Amino acid sequence: MARRILVVGAGKSTSYLLDYFLEHAAEEDLLITIADKNPQAIPMEVQKHPRAEVTALDIADEVARRSRVEQADIVVSMLPPSLHLEVAKDCLHYGKNLVTASYISEGMRQLDAAVREKGLVFMNEIGLDPGIDHMSAMQLIDRIKASGGRMLLFESFTGGLLSPESDTNLWNYKFTWNPRNVVVAGQGGAAKFIQEGTYKYIPYHKLFRRTEFLEIEGYGTFEVYANRDSLSYREAYGLQDTLTLYRGTMRRVGFSRAWNIFVQLGMTDDTYRIENSKGMSYRDFTNLFLPYSPTDSVELKLRHYLKIDQDDVLWGKLLEINLFDPKSKLKTENGTPAQLLQEILEESWRLGPEDRDMIVMYHKFGYEKDGEKHQLDSNMVVLGESARHTAMSKTVGLPVAIGTLLILNGKVRTPGVQIPIRREIYEPCLKTLESYGIGFREYEVPYLGYNPDSVGN
Amino acid sequence: MARRILVVGAGKSTSYLLDYFLEHAAEEDLLITIADKNPQAIPMEVQKHPRAEVTALDIADEVARRSRVEQADIVVSMLPPSLHLEVAKDCLHYGKNLVTASYISEGMRQLDAAVREKGLVFMNEIGLDPGIDHMSAMQLIDRIKASGGRMLLFESFTGGLLSPESDTNLWNYKFTWNPRNVVVAGQGGAAKFIQEGTYKYIPYHKLFRRTEFLEIEGYGTFEVYANRDSLSYREAYGLQDTLTLYRGTMRRVGFSRAWNIFVQLGMTDDTYRIENSKGMSYRDFTNLFLPYSPTDSVELKLRHYLKIDQDDVLWGKLLEINLFDPKSKLKTENGTPAQLLQEILEESWRLGPEDRDMIVMYHKFGYEKDGEKHQLDSNMVVLGESARHTAMSKTVGLPVAIGTLLILNGKVRTPGVQIPIRREIYEPCLKTLESYGIGFREYEVPYLGYNPDSVGN
Repeated sequence: MARRILVVGAGKSTSYLLDYFLEHAAEEDLLITIADKNPQAIPMEVQKHPRAEVTALDIADEVARRSRVEQADIVVSMLPPSLHLEVAKDCLHYGKNLVTASYISEGMRQLDAAVREKGLVFMNEIGLDPGIDHMSAMQLIDRIKASGGRMLLFESFTGGLLSPESDTNLWNYKFTWNPRNVVVAGQGGAAKFIQEGTYKYIPYHKLFRRTEFLEIEGYGTFEVYANRDSLSYREAYGLQDTLTLYRGTMRRVGFSRAWNIFVQLGMTDDTYRIENSKGMSYRDFTNLFLPYSPTDSVELKLRHYLKIDQDDVLWGKLLEINLFDPKSKLKTENGTPAQLLQEILEESWRLGPEDRDMIVMYHKFGYEKDGEKHQLDSNMVVLGESARHTAMSKTVGLPVAIGTLLILNGKVRTPGVQIPIRREIYEPCLKTLESYGIGFREYEVPYLGYNPDSVGN
Repeated sequence: MARRILVVGAGKSTSYLLDYFLEHAAEEDLLITIADKNPQAIPMEVQKHPRAEVTALDIADEVARRSRVEQADIVVSMLPPSLHLEVAKDCLHYGKNLVTASYISEGMRQLDAAVREKGLVFMNEIGLDPGIDHMSAMQLIDRIKASGGRMLLFESFTGGLLSPESDTNLWNYKFTWNPRNVVVAGQGGAAKFIQEGTYKYIPYHKLFRRTEFLEIEGYGTFEVYANRDSLSYREAYGLQDTLTLYRGTMRRVGFSRAWNIFVQLGMTDDTYRIENSKGMSYRDFTNLFLPYSPTDSVELKLRHYLKIDQDDVLWGKLLEINLFDPKSKLKTENGTPAQLLQEILEESWRLGPEDRDMIVMYHKFGYEKDGEKHQLDSNMVVLGESARHTAMSKTVGLPVAIGTLLILNGKVRTPGVQIPIRREIYEPCLKTLESYGIGFREYEVPYLGYNPDSVGN
């Protein structure tokens, strides 16, 4: 009898995931049930595939949901993160393994003991970031340790950007993923990390001014700003004694300095609502964050307030998104500043039908071996194929799909609520990803420690 | 039979309050019961006063608390704001009037209907700020309106500072009130106000760079930064159509620019804890917020990061509080940055036994009358008499005491949970305050509207 994979949630990011399953359906004897709120949005070639079954499912309908889980051999949840937990409880109840690409929530973590007891595998964080970052980092950390090295430094950066020929605006940026995550990135507390054994804290309003630069051969220079918590995987990665731990987000050089303008103005604030925002011009929106003047223009007030020189490239970036336009009007009613800024940016940063995206990932590993210090850098670049087949959906969907088959085929058996940091999962998963063009290049470089020239503007 | 006033909570700020009651105790036939957790801390001359009764009271002891309230004719709560509500419920139960100097909490507001129904007066916000600001502003607003004026602008500022001969450090500041309130001032959301009919929002990290200047005859120049919510009294004051509404905090010029250094570094953050802060040097604390460098000093990193010139007076201010001292050690364990900064500042900004404080308040009233625009400024300066008899405790305690007697004597009868914005309370209260040296000077000035030169750095 065919093995049933239940995929719950089939948003735009699942194209590669579904393609992978259907490609292997015959040889692996799979039947793929795709349960979504809007099944008609699923592409025809998937709906018509003989080994695919597409069905409408309201995730709040407990009876229908449970019945689907009961019939499956393994469950993949591609729902928004907040909805995984109900599916996870059903999986626990019916004894099914589960795979998600999301961060382990507190609720999910609490299922761990029960999941272990039943011998189940609940694999989470097996997308891109988190996902490929875990697997590729652990592969190298384990290799360095196995060869007798002692880890001194680990830095890891990921960015969802534009492939070079689509990189056509002054910001070198368009939205290739959830725009809201970009607008509120870094909020909710100071960024924490360790540099050379010392804790460091960066408040949100300085985050985009403390950047570091990275080169990727053939792709030029990138910049990095710190993620909120660089220390969360310290124990999972076995890096308790490592002197430098730093995780960040990659952008093209100059993005953060310009983004900082929004932060300084207060436009990324998501904690209060602006009354009657609907119909407000972009210009009036900008003026909310500037002092009143009976004579000076919004432009001059902003230049003076944030000390922007007339010939600074920052200025062109603000003009490009129509920030001073009196004719463009906001459509969101009573929006937070962050929601309204998002609306303005989506107007300019929408991915066009011909645009292709690009994923970049960069790790630095510093270690000591035989009394000498070494550094190994490794990086990955994945280019999107089209507006539907994006690098983002490929790098998120493929590891989920590959991991699912590994678990279904009994190659991964360690029970528990977990992330892909064990060799049994990362070795075969990374190997298969490489055959799909998702691979890392490694460079031995002189050990720099924490480069004092690159941070600290 | 003597009338009984129950004063719950007798902290340092109650000296003038108790003195006022005891001064009037004979002529008004009062008996003052002072109930506090530490009654032995109450001065001997109060304890021995024939019309005073001092008693230990644990506010959590419901039976004792209720019995005290039941015996009183009126209750004054000088407890920390979070503890008023239990006392208020007792007052409601036993039908007693209540007076506090604190902001009306949501819980207090919900008692309003029941308080009205019983015909009780629960007078709140009758200290300095809130308190004297409400009364003095409403007196002038009512006067302007009664003379046919239409309000265009209302701005109101208060500061707790040092009297000139005690103003001896580079910051022109010492703690004359709760230091914690100073360290976290302005946090919790953007500052909101209206300028010339337009809403304006300032994010916290820009608050101390958007200052305005004020002159007070004989006392020189002050600066002002915006309070979080300037709009909260819009309806209560009857200023729904007023084009400019702005409330702020007064400091000596240069304070905010220097305080901004702490904000920019992230030292005022109260949302996370720093592990093992106990024993950490002030210098290492400062370094937590600066980039790592194997060679550069903490001083140079900070100068560079925040672009502070070598000859900037800011620098002397940082040295004065020993921010770079490797020998001074923090005592607080696992403190938040704000708690640790407070500890550092308390070391330098403690009020000495000879120090005297100063309260300043400044209102601006813009209005239109007979087709012409007018402006009236009014300000108040109160100097402290000693370290115990501070201007702060005088301006907080006296209006509470005066208001209490007015209510006790039936001069204020409008029932409900309220603030002192009615003529029946502000007229007699301000008049009595004047006889204690707490009064306002008024100046007719040319109408400026919102002065574009003074805001917007």
